[in-house]
Amino acid sequence: MNQALRIVVVAPDLAVADPEDEHALQQAERARALHIGLLENNFNLVATLPADVFLSERIAQLQPDLIIVDAESDARDALEHVVLATRDARRPIVLFTNDEDRALVKDAVAAGVSAYIVAGLSTQRIRPILDVALARFQHEQALRAELADARTALRERKTIDRAKGLLMQRQGLSEQAAYEKLRKSAMDKGLKLGDVAQRMLDAMELLG
Amino acid sequence: MNQALRIVVVAPDLAVADPEDEHALQQAERARALHIGLLENNFNLVATLPADVFLSERIAQLQPDLIIVDAESDARDALEHVVLATRDARRPIVLFTNDEDRALVKDAVAAGVSAYIVAGLSTQRIRPILDVALARFQHEQALRAELADARTALRERKTIDRAKGLLMQRQGLSEQAAYEKLRKSAMDKGLKLGDVAQRMLDAMELLG
Repeated sequence: MNQALRIVVVAPDLAVADPEDEHALQQAERARALHIGLLENNFNLVATLPADVFLSERIAQLQPDLIIVDAESDARDALEHVVLATRDARRPIVLFTNDEDRALVKDAVAAGVSAYIVAGLSTQRIRPILDVALARFQHEQALRAELADARTALRERKTIDRAKGLLMQRQGLSEQAAYEKLRKSAMDKGLKLGDVAQRMLDAMELLG
Repeated sequence: MNQALRIVVVAPDLAVADPEDEHALQQAERARALHIGLLENNFNLVATLPADVFLSERIAQLQPDLIIVDAESDARDALEHVVLATRDARRPIVLFTNDEDRALVKDAVAAGVSAYIVAGLSTQRIRPILDVALARFQHEQALRAELADARTALRERKTIDRAKGLLMQRQGLSEQAAYEKLRKSAMDKGLKLGDVAQRMLDAMELLG
């Protein structure tokens, strides 16, 4: 793994207001251990951010290669913010949590979390976890790209067929002639065949 | 997670021939810890098998819900056997290994490994790891099914279009008439439109 990977950690505010608050102290200790682990492994920790409404904007500015969500028990809320913030540009997400809610596991994986780590962190485990998360993210992105390609091809084919059918019907053209007409129009305008077909359908809809 | 999940562990032979062999002793200890962890968590451990040429057959017989590959350092070999053995019926695969080879991580994820766990096992970590592995497997299977559906739809559409075009050309039919002819033939034979189109193309190829 490239050690210059830009990492953003999303974690709750770690200032412990009440020194008697055991839960807050534990969470702070846990966050400290994660940061030390990242630094010891020479990762480029570019920011630690709270899971709030500004997260999308900050992630868009920082363009991290990987996002670590550190959530003691409020994992669902934190995750929702991060998923929303990476909806338009997916990024590998690693979730460290003590939340063993099984419904959350399913939801997190469905939402695109690349690694879901329950229970203890140890410094020497951080690197392999991130390696696996990146490999998994790339694998899933490849699958998603194949799916998008297949759907686009099908949609384009349907659009072209509809446009061809309309030309045949309205202008009394043969299938071949209708196809040639579309193809020539695409070449003249420097557009894809599917785009020309879509424009034609849009125009016909406007004209009624 | 359903505790009646049928689990098969794939691991090297654990009989330690030479009591001085530190490596073999460690591997045996590790395997023992894994088995205890599974049993303590009430999983249904149906078999422990070596990664050999009989693996495909045994997995087909046992039909496990999940396969754990326990590989100290020879993970690549073991994984190849398991991937081959689950090629026709994919199953969730969890790989426990000490092998930190990064190329292996990528290959394992690409081959469909649902969880890749480097370094220490602890009993309380087993359940969440298997939960995540199952969720991830189901998520990936759903993506693969969507991809297969999209590709099938595209392929069928192409086949139908080719068959329609041939009917139009050879029998001088309009597009609508060609389509109706295919559709009627499909209904008469109780076949899908794409299948009728494919049979027609096959027949025409035979007849030249």
